Amino acid sequence: MEQIDLGMTDRSAKAGWGETELMSDVSGFLIPAGFRFAAVKAGLKASGRTDFAVIVADGLEGGVASAAALFTANRVTAAPLQVDKEHLAATGGKVRVVAVNAGNANCAAGQAGLDAAYATCAAAAVEFGCRAEEVFPSSTGIIGVPLPVEKLVAALPAVKAGLGSESDHFQQVAQAILTTDLVEKTAFARIVIEGKEVRIAAVGKGSGMIHPRLVPAAPHAALHATMLVYILTDAEADPAALQRILGRAVEVSFNRISVDGDTSTNDTVLLLASGASGVRVLDGDAEFEEALTQVATSLARQIVADGEGVGHVVELRVKGAVSDAEAVRVAKAIAHSPLVKTAWAGCDPNWGRLMAAIGNSGAEIDPSRIDIWFGELPICKDGGRAVDMNMAAAHDYLKQPEFSIAIELHQGEGSCVFWTTDLTAEYVRINADYST
Amino acid sequence: MEQIDLGMTDRSAKAGWGETELMSDVSGFLIPAGFRFAAVKAGLKASGRTDFAVIVADGLEGGVASAAALFTANRVTAAPLQVDKEHLAATGGKVRVVAVNAGNANCAAGQAGLDAAYATCAAAAVEFGCRAEEVFPSSTGIIGVPLPVEKLVAALPAVKAGLGSESDHFQQVAQAILTTDLVEKTAFARIVIEGKEVRIAAVGKGSGMIHPRLVPAAPHAALHATMLVYILTDAEADPAALQRILGRAVEVSFNRISVDGDTSTNDTVLLLASGASGVRVLDGDAEFEEALTQVATSLARQIVADGEGVGHVVELRVKGAVSDAEAVRVAKAIAHSPLVKTAWAGCDPNWGRLMAAIGNSGAEIDPSRIDIWFGELPICKDGGRAVDMNMAAAHDYLKQPEFSIAIELHQGEGSCVFWTTDLTAEYVRINADYST
Repeated sequence: MEQIDLGMTDRSAKAGWGETELMSDVSGFLIPAGFRFAAVKAGLKASGRTDFAVIVADGLEGGVASAAALFTANRVTAAPLQVDKEHLAATGGKVRVVAVNAGNANCAAGQAGLDAAYATCAAAAVEFGCRAEEVFPSSTGIIGVPLPVEKLVAALPAVKAGLGSESDHFQQVAQAILTTDLVEKTAFARIVIEGKEVRIAAVGKGSGMIHPRLVPAAPHAALHATMLVYILTDAEADPAALQRILGRAVEVSFNRISVDGDTSTNDTVLLLASGASGVRVLDGDAEFEEALTQVATSLARQIVADGEGVGHVVELRVKGAVSDAEAVRVAKAIAHSPLVKTAWAGCDPNWGRLMAAIGNSGAEIDPSRIDIWFGELPICKDGGRAVDMNMAAAHDYLKQPEFSIAIELHQGEGSCVFWTTDLTAEYVRINADYST
Repeated sequence: MEQIDLGMTDRSAKAGWGETELMSDVSGFLIPAGFRFAAVKAGLKASGRTDFAVIVADGLEGGVASAAALFTANRVTAAPLQVDKEHLAATGGKVRVVAVNAGNANCAAGQAGLDAAYATCAAAAVEFGCRAEEVFPSSTGIIGVPLPVEKLVAALPAVKAGLGSESDHFQQVAQAILTTDLVEKTAFARIVIEGKEVRIAAVGKGSGMIHPRLVPAAPHAALHATMLVYILTDAEADPAALQRILGRAVEVSFNRISVDGDTSTNDTVLLLASGASGVRVLDGDAEFEEALTQVATSLARQIVADGEGVGHVVELRVKGAVSDAEAVRVAKAIAHSPLVKTAWAGCDPNWGRLMAAIGNSGAEIDPSRIDIWFGELPICKDGGRAVDMNMAAAHDYLKQPEFSIAIELHQGEGSCVFWTTDLTAEYVRINADYST
């Protein structure tokens, strides 16, 4: 296998995280073959925007894609996630139709919620000529309010009529699945394997309730607002191989971000492989996994950058932990400390709050050996204020819309990179609005 | 042993939590005998207010009180806490002088921080005629800034000259130890045991970085902003008995509150028994422990009510958990969810966020068996919206400055009561201010 070319189109990388610019040219060739897309207004969003999107993987004979998925580790899970797990188990990892609505999470709705998810699948199966088990439903929005499933069912003919495989159609999905998000989130990669092009395209949403802890559907040990992510490729692969590749890619991307520390009931990452490129990918193929990981990381960072009320995006680099898991533990303690996050909102170099958060992580540390940098600026050395710390420079550094904080624990070889945000009065305003 | 009278003076109970009124008459008889108090301006607070307080327990021959203490479980601990632990171990639990400064936490200051704490003790020992090991230093304020110990040492003669045993002197301590607190926090109890009166008086501070997880100084299994609490009694007791009684009282009071989920590096609860009443208390004396627990609970609730930027104080009653520890786990997941806390700020009956938080707790639950009430109002039944839920009534209920939420998990007999707050834009404003 040979990697000739790895071209990445990362919208967030173009304009910096805080200010994602619309791409003027999402070239059609980047959309993986074998998929069609459409979105319509089903009437779930109060704003009246498009709120129901469908991805159909019927590009090959047989008309199903190999699928791998990870779901939230929250013990309260939305009805569509329960149905998704049943369907993937029933089909052995095959999906023909992804049906996503925004505006209602279909969670904490009891049997009525499950019935609504099943009804969506049954109607979609008739509309798109497949088995109900080949439909993968997703929902995002308010929890605890009954899903008006009749609106989704009524919208199916219109969404079917709108299906297309161009980038415009793909962007329709990116728009329709948004809730409190301000911008659409997509990422694309292209690799050439043995002379053939393989494309990967990802679309996602998520702005608040963002602290994904994603785990496989099977009862595994646990790994993470609502975040919904759909990654499509025209590679050919077995569901089992896809699941392993996706698991590793998610672990260092979506499982390494947090906006507010609230893990959603609906988080879902779905990877579909249409096989239309004719290139078979196996577990262990480094090129494909690297491209997938880059796409996932790009989308994860875009979600953080569009976090609710975000003023600053923060990259945490923790090194010298006893293990990678301990490094993540330290990063999460920092990322979930309201005092650290509000200090960031104020561009305040109050590194003592970082020390307190590190101490609260429960990770193995020796406070007197901790070093901290803001970017390249020494801040804390051996657990105390660095002698060459420049408070004014530190303050200026934190005025940037995105910045990096490095922490060296000197305990071992464990490390991680984690992305998070500040906590602003705007976040409070967005989430304190009376919802009904 | 006989309990004839249990009189409680709880300032917070007088006027409701949100609006603690100043007591016009803190009758002198409530201050336990055997202690003297004073506070002065040492020049640590930018506001110029009193910032250095001393409690001297020299009322009896020998001039030391029996002491028990619990400290933060944060692995980064301030210098005075390290010194406190050493001193209590060296004396076997005896304290003559408590020396508390506000305005600087003396944390993350390396060896210089320890030197500053030792220097304070040495100077206080000379001033008050005791051993340095009998001095118990405390600090609260900003982390990572060197403590100007010379200011404390210079203030010792003035604070000594001001010592007195009246309630006014006690209130001086309550005032001097405040940082971002808006009101002084005290609680008093009086019990009569075998015909003799025993008094308990507690003084504390804490407003932000409030999620105490207090543990004994000895390497024990772990239990919990800066919260500083000093509880004084004129009972006579062994340090070991005091430690056990205090441990149980703290577990259901200070270890059951959270403002922002940030456990401080400096949290300290100290119990001193002067013995001046001549009434000996043993571990197992229900009357004394009950009175101590009531005083501790009163102070804990006052700290929550004075939390930074608090708009609503919330009492969480979790029942039906597998164990009390699991009930606390659920309460903390709710109390630490930004989405739940911001919904409360908006008086928003968005109970779906409660469900998501419960699911994130990691506690053993069955979502379909969860019931939720706001006060007496049914909100969620069997994991779904209660049929008799009244959204308008729920919204009105949450407009109250203090309210109660009950959660029944139907998993076992474990329960807890936990006090927390909403998360407001004012909290962000207070903590986003550039500190230097």
